[in-house]
Amino acid sequence: MDETPVHETIYNQPFIRQRADPYILRCEDGTYYFTASVPEYDRIMLRRADTLSGLREAEEKTIWVKHMSGPQSIHIWAPELHRIDGHWYIYYAGGDVDDVWEIRPYVLRCAGEDPISDPWEELGPMQPADDDPFSFRAFSLDATVFPHRGGWYMVWAEKVGVGKQISNLYIAKMSSPNKLGTVQVLLTTPDYGWERGDFWVNEAPAVLRHDGKIFLTFSANTTGELYCMGMLWIREGEDLLDPGNWTKLRQPVFRSDPEKEVHGPGHNSFVKAEDGVTDLCVYHARQYDRMAGNPLYDPNRHVYIMPVTFDSEGFPVFRHLPQEW
Amino acid sequence: MDETPVHETIYNQPFIRQRADPYILRCEDGTYYFTASVPEYDRIMLRRADTLSGLREAEEKTIWVKHMSGPQSIHIWAPELHRIDGHWYIYYAGGDVDDVWEIRPYVLRCAGEDPISDPWEELGPMQPADDDPFSFRAFSLDATVFPHRGGWYMVWAEKVGVGKQISNLYIAKMSSPNKLGTVQVLLTTPDYGWERGDFWVNEAPAVLRHDGKIFLTFSANTTGELYCMGMLWIREGEDLLDPGNWTKLRQPVFRSDPEKEVHGPGHNSFVKAEDGVTDLCVYHARQYDRMAGNPLYDPNRHVYIMPVTFDSEGFPVFRHLPQEW
Repeated sequence: MDETPVHETIYNQPFIRQRADPYILRCEDGTYYFTASVPEYDRIMLRRADTLSGLREAEEKTIWVKHMSGPQSIHIWAPELHRIDGHWYIYYAGGDVDDVWEIRPYVLRCAGEDPISDPWEELGPMQPADDDPFSFRAFSLDATVFPHRGGWYMVWAEKVGVGKQISNLYIAKMSSPNKLGTVQVLLTTPDYGWERGDFWVNEAPAVLRHDGKIFLTFSANTTGELYCMGMLWIREGEDLLDPGNWTKLRQPVFRSDPEKEVHGPGHNSFVKAEDGVTDLCVYHARQYDRMAGNPLYDPNRHVYIMPVTFDSEGFPVFRHLPQEW
Repeated sequence: MDETPVHETIYNQPFIRQRADPYILRCEDGTYYFTASVPEYDRIMLRRADTLSGLREAEEKTIWVKHMSGPQSIHIWAPELHRIDGHWYIYYAGGDVDDVWEIRPYVLRCAGEDPISDPWEELGPMQPADDDPFSFRAFSLDATVFPHRGGWYMVWAEKVGVGKQISNLYIAKMSSPNKLGTVQVLLTTPDYGWERGDFWVNEAPAVLRHDGKIFLTFSANTTGELYCMGMLWIREGEDLLDPGNWTKLRQPVFRSDPEKEVHGPGHNSFVKAEDGVTDLCVYHARQYDRMAGNPLYDPNRHVYIMPVTFDSEGFPVFRHLPQEW
């Protein structure tokens, strides 16, 4: 029995530096994969290790680079690695150097069994359902996918509005790894003050299951000190496409902790610890709150890891724990 | 004691013909006012009568006509008459002949005490709160207002999205009769199939209070046979600006009844019957479902009136009643 701790992270110490929108996947055999946005926003990289902490020093392999022009040529963001029906897929977002905010979700599929060494093929932009004239028509990103009752669902962020826009989260059932099978359903829009800074934002959905409930965390507000995590939840047995089944918490579940120098935490994902049981929340944050220039181009969003505990009603708690756990 | 019936309408017989988006107001002295969209969409008219049924034959006074050009020069829609702080106001929507779908809400105030004979002044477009960059920026209409706990609230429909758009309902607290005091809060978007035809629409909000609850009906789907009424509700004591306090019914509360030749009912308002107690639902519908051309320019949306009953849990029932009631 391996006696190493779940990981050796101290909650307010970066686990990996200068990687944002972190995503970690644990395979059944215990292998871990890590991917994230790099500060240059120009490529997709993967790391692999036999242990979680091994990801820190693991070699970083670039498995795809941005195009020279046109779609996917700038702002390559928030990749996620998923295993669907026996193939590896990466979901990510990208813009166009000639129209840098024309961000859309794209899909890669690995041509082989080894996501590090085998080639990746472009499946192009994520496709909406045939009868959906709304999805992926505007600034859209942060697509995540998850299996549920024999099918796969996608949740993504997309902006609406004329002039200044609002970023909402939508859900749909998928008909294939690169196409939706149902029209979009609005899950959450920035309803509360904590979601509404200079920009009104809901983005970065992540799914966590526990004891009969599905939790959907998301990130809210402007990138910077106000950035924080909110949450929706639904019971496992309910129709995920009926927004009336989802409940949104009125308060954020995780936000800046200036005393501990954790600033603007968010864009999280979830992964099991090495024990295969403990849920970990992987997120990024900064160690300072003041930046010169656009926070988007400040490279110092670092990866942090926090264990998730559950309260007496089975709801996840994203609270800073003692430094050793 | 007046022994005339509440009104003499048979539910599937038009109360007033060729008037759409009907709105009836009952004053404390029992006087009734009626306004609505006229088929030409070119003016705002008022009728007044001592009885509800008197509105049928009451003289129709044009109190305002569209501009020759610019804003408010076409598509004059859905006027509502309200008494706020001792003045008469009319809320309505209008477009621009040079950009006919640039529909926005506008406000009129009566310069005197008699809304029929006294002049009306234009207060111009309804103003968003100073810190709200989103409201009334796109196609927006169907503003209704209602008092609540010492303040006034506005609910209106506004479209979002690029390309094809979606019409949502928003709420805000007002700071004055022609300005909002708070930023917009999304109340409902077309979530379900019955709200999603060729167009995804929520519009025409109307407020009904009963036994500690506030009900907000709205109209959904494309104008035509699929047009129908949905409903949200909230308890009187709860914060109207917290969308988590509102519950949306999963099914429409009123829809086409082809057997009775009631087609595409909706855009309702509420008014008390002459007994001062019975709630009436005033709505428009057509007597046929097939139209040549754009349903918007078919003049035969007629005004109907239906008494509202309440079920054992205090929820309104919009059900066809026996012909005499």
